Amino acid sequence: MTLDKRTHDRTFVRTFFTTPTAEKGVEDSAKKLRSAIELRGMQAPDVWVPDNEDATAPNMRDEGAENIAEVVAESGADFPGEIHPRVVWHRDSPETRYQGFQHMLEIADPENGAIEHIDGFVIPEVGDIDDWKKADEFITIVENEYGLEEGSIAMSVIIESGSAELAMGKLREEMGKADNNLERLFLLVDGEVDYTKDMRAITPTGGLPEWKELRHNTSRAASAAGLISVDGPYDDIRDVEGYHDRITANNAMGMLGIWSLTPGQVVEANKSPLPPATGYWLIDADGREVELESEDGVEVYSGDRIELEEEDGGYELEVGSTEIFCESEEELADELLDLVDYVPSMDDIVDSMEEFEAAKEAGKGAIAMTRAATIEIDGVQVDVSSDRMWDEATYQALMTPVKLFQDVYENRPDQHDDLADLYSEDVVERAIEVGN
Amino acid sequence: MTLDKRTHDRTFVRTFFTTPTAEKGVEDSAKKLRSAIELRGMQAPDVWVPDNEDATAPNMRDEGAENIAEVVAESGADFPGEIHPRVVWHRDSPETRYQGFQHMLEIADPENGAIEHIDGFVIPEVGDIDDWKKADEFITIVENEYGLEEGSIAMSVIIESGSAELAMGKLREEMGKADNNLERLFLLVDGEVDYTKDMRAITPTGGLPEWKELRHNTSRAASAAGLISVDGPYDDIRDVEGYHDRITANNAMGMLGIWSLTPGQVVEANKSPLPPATGYWLIDADGREVELESEDGVEVYSGDRIELEEEDGGYELEVGSTEIFCESEEELADELLDLVDYVPSMDDIVDSMEEFEAAKEAGKGAIAMTRAATIEIDGVQVDVSSDRMWDEATYQALMTPVKLFQDVYENRPDQHDDLADLYSEDVVERAIEVGN
Amino acid sequence: MTLDKRTHDRTFVRTFFTTPTAEKGVEDSAKKLRSAIELRGMQAPDVWVPDNEDATAPNMRDEGAENIAEVVAESGADFPGEIHPRVVWHRDSPETRYQGFQHMLEIADPENGAIEHIDGFVIPEVGDIDDWKKADEFITIVENEYGLEEGSIAMSVIIESGSAELAMGKLREEMGKADNNLERLFLLVDGEVDYTKDMRAITPTGGLPEWKELRHNTSRAASAAGLISVDGPYDDIRDVEGYHDRITANNAMGMLGIWSLTPGQVVEANKSPLPPATGYWLIDADGREVELESEDGVEVYSGDRIELEEEDGGYELEVGSTEIFCESEEELADELLDLVDYVPSMDDIVDSMEEFEAAKEAGKGAIAMTRAATIEIDGVQVDVSSDRMWDEATYQALMTPVKLFQDVYENRPDQHDDLADLYSEDVVERAIEVGN
Repeated sequence: MTLDKRTHDRTFVRTFFTTPTAEKGVEDSAKKLRSAIELRGMQAPDVWVPDNEDATAPNMRDEGAENIAEVVAESGADFPGEIHPRVVWHRDSPETRYQGFQHMLEIADPENGAIEHIDGFVIPEVGDIDDWKKADEFITIVENEYGLEEGSIAMSVIIESGSAELAMGKLREEMGKADNNLERLFLLVDGEVDYTKDMRAITPTGGLPEWKELRHNTSRAASAAGLISVDGPYDDIRDVEGYHDRITANNAMGMLGIWSLTPGQVVEANKSPLPPATGYWLIDADGREVELESEDGVEVYSGDRIELEEEDGGYELEVGSTEIFCESEEELADELLDLVDYVPSMDDIVDSMEEFEAAKEAGKGAIAMTRAATIEIDGVQVDVSSDRMWDEATYQALMTPVKLFQDVYENRPDQHDDLADLYSEDVVERAIEVGN
Repeated sequence: MTLDKRTHDRTFVRTFFTTPTAEKGVEDSAKKLRSAIELRGMQAPDVWVPDNEDATAPNMRDEGAENIAEVVAESGADFPGEIHPRVVWHRDSPETRYQGFQHMLEIADPENGAIEHIDGFVIPEVGDIDDWKKADEFITIVENEYGLEEGSIAMSVIIESGSAELAMGKLREEMGKADNNLERLFLLVDGEVDYTKDMRAITPTGGLPEWKELRHNTSRAASAAGLISVDGPYDDIRDVEGYHDRITANNAMGMLGIWSLTPGQVVEANKSPLPPATGYWLIDADGREVELESEDGVEVYSGDRIELEEEDGGYELEVGSTEIFCESEEELADELLDLVDYVPSMDDIVDSMEEFEAAKEAGKGAIAMTRAATIEIDGVQVDVSSDRMWDEATYQALMTPVKLFQDVYENRPDQHDDLADLYSEDVVERAIEVGN
Repeated sequence: MTLDKRTHDRTFVRTFFTTPTAEKGVEDSAKKLRSAIELRGMQAPDVWVPDNEDATAPNMRDEGAENIAEVVAESGADFPGEIHPRVVWHRDSPETRYQGFQHMLEIADPENGAIEHIDGFVIPEVGDIDDWKKADEFITIVENEYGLEEGSIAMSVIIESGSAELAMGKLREEMGKADNNLERLFLLVDGEVDYTKDMRAITPTGGLPEWKELRHNTSRAASAAGLISVDGPYDDIRDVEGYHDRITANNAMGMLGIWSLTPGQVVEANKSPLPPATGYWLIDADGREVELESEDGVEVYSGDRIELEEEDGGYELEVGSTEIFCESEEELADELLDLVDYVPSMDDIVDSMEEFEAAKEAGKGAIAMTRAATIEIDGVQVDVSSDRMWDEATYQALMTPVKLFQDVYENRPDQHDDLADLYSEDVVERAIEVGN
């Protein structure tokens, strides 16, 4: 990233990856920074955050600020994502805020040669909107001091207090005001550990609460103010499945970005919001979603939570402990239709988009999209088929993953090969065209 | 509805039924409007919405506005519900907003003879509160232009953006201001498909997220500002059970209205929030709520998720995989009491209300309401009985379904026969008297 | 409590216990007040509320106000908790508000000798923030009238309307204003029965909805404005387990206080948010959390939702209907690690805190805390061990239960014996030292 391509370049951010800025007692205290800035492809995040706050020991942070400047000056030009260092800040401590200001002055000093590759700063522990404005003002001074355009340095905040959560409801009113440059706002990032402390929540095991309302409110604020929402760190880096499930749940709330603590998490978070390469069917097996296995065009359920057999000229379907007798294959198909659902591939999605666009050009406002399959349970095969009405609103709502893909494709050339491997060149080409 | 009975006549709205206003290539492009305005009884909605936005193709909307005026002029006088046409609007498009204004001018023109049967307009895709005010101002101009009383045309909005969701938190402050007529506000309707797009949410199957927080916030705003909240469309019109479950979940959040896409959905949505004609018992069968079958005054569980047998001079109760040994019938009754719950009929509710009112007159502030039953599981019968303390607050809170019923009874004479068929004349008469 | 120790003395409140202030037709109409003010130890609440609103019949409330003054004058000096009488109030009724004002004047009259033991008043049924200010102003007048310091009488409110829920979002802006004394605010208490009425919610059984969003918003407002959040009454006083579960769920949202209707509920609510005396392991048995039994240092699962056996040189683990084959003990340990979790005792928590503090002094910013156990299922024993990284944020977040304990220890000497019995003298001493 270079100066002319900085703030608000991305409209989607999948990954927010933090790296300690300085370590004591090692030969090169900036070693981890050097290693992170070399990441490419799926291992490289959309937003990289040299973290001069929690990830770095308090007495190493002055050195950390220098390390950021040095490493970004050296290698920032080639880094494929955006670079947003996190500095120290606290709504309750003027001392900490002044320290954060000094670190920003240090990192952005043009003499260090880093600022042209830096896209913005991340401000943690903000409070009410007036506290956000203090950080905004410091960044304005930094810009003015170094001859940068006002508003050109982005500002992201970590939401880790009840007051910051409430502040997000005021962004639309505050962002246009003459006395601030809050238009520089970029990411709203939840920080659940400190939020838990601020809310004084207690769980028996010490595990983090869900904080679903916080995530909704963050996503909503991002939507209302034209920003991007990002979920906080997922501590159990061993638990890939749990991380993936969290991303899926976040995506259903419109929160498409997540914090990553390791390059492994970055890979997972870069890929999770994109549609799969191959579509598949799901079945609701007595309250648990199970993926059907596709065998020669037949979708097979092989668990034991659902049982099916032909009996007395009809079908006996047992889901968990509920038995349903179906008199005909049609009735059985109706029952199964309530249980199954299809996860479309990127290819499927592009097909549907193209089909709807063609219909629109032919003057139709709504068309039925059909999805059919042969389902097999306990050796019995049933054909099911469902129609879904698509209108302009459906089309627009289902366009989100495609737009995300297009944003990735445009901004992350280093991931082109990975995307082509995943989807095939042909699908990639159609996906970048559709809707434009 | 006639002019003198318009805005804010209803304090409850169960159904919001939309109809396309014009179709291309059919002999009578207003055919669907004509058919909808003839609906009566349980098939007729509380609020009927000739939909000149999404349900009608963009190039048919001028004709749609004319059709609304024509059909409502012809048959609006006899329509039993309120009539609120939806016009086009978008927070991001002055062109669309101006078009909506023109359609309102067309529909409300007294020369067309429709306006005296029209209760208000529905404005979709609103943004922040200042955008709501633009629509309010256009309606004020319409009123002034045609000599109607200022504020007499109701305005309902569709909440389908994060900014509109946030705007709902400001209604109490904004509605009294001298420079607007926002007191005309009537319904707050969630529009989940477009909201999903605005929030940029992604689900693997393309299904709609739950948006529980949105629904809570809409219900809360309606409660705080004296408005009525309505949930968005339920697309799968085949799935009656799912629609019913959604209504039940909405009702528990105070959202008593729902969008209907077909007369069949209207029937379901008109009936669902009303208490049942016959009460019944529920049992929590290892996490699943099951209705007990009433046989000769005994409530029988016949599934296999709960097992019960007499053993060693006591009772062995097995719920899912949890076994509980009860030493006495009393102990068993206590265990069962935790599992069962009663859904009172309209008759039961009126009985309880009357009993509490009598106690109040006798100078008591709180009384115990007893509910008893004989439960049978695996042939073993147990008598259970529970007391619930009722005070003024309980009485008031449980009055909501009765008040809804009374509102329906007063405003929908065309449903009197259906209500009498459902509950009996006697119960209807007591239900309209209680609490007054 | 005496005058100099009043408002804002507690930073944590576990229990909010209401008592009727007057009963008709009994010899001593203040009998319940006299009995409640004698409570000590775990049976005595942190906040005691002589309830001159819903708990007392409307025609007895003047006498109730006199009773409060009399009983508190007699015995208030020795009561171990704070005393906050509830008076009548309603956002929609100036008559009720004036009555509440008169009752406050009566109760606080220095001639009655009660005011020096009274810490504040509880105002129910508040509406928007301007309604809160009316109550605040009356209390200011009471203070001025009787020569008390402005702001010295605390004010707590019951949130039982959508407008009050919205008002909580404005506290930070309003509390500092020159024309009010809203700094006197103390508790934000949810009142779900009346809230259900105000929201017009309906459930089939008449049971209370969950109102999870309300509880989140109350907890958040308390966090943002430096107040304390308290959940409403739990009606089924027989159901101790349900009450405990509700408290656990509330605590995970940062709502550490709850209403108590009986001394039995007070005991439960005083103890529930404190860490247990003995730690224990939990296992996720196919969606249900089960406590493992500790036998000679081995944690044993003896249910039948999880099965484990050695087979084919590996292990067959069956959770519900999902079978997992593990090739080695290490693989099995990994699988089990995903299922188990540890609930630390107070002793464990203090150990961890001390360990982290020592590491911090030695210059380390983050350390791994190890938790190990031997798990036994179907006779097969497996050693599992997990590391959790602790940094300053983890330390701070997990400090909440310890801070709660320290607040209790400082403010409730009458509970010292109970705490020593529960945890041992030694653990208590270390717990009150740690973190200071």
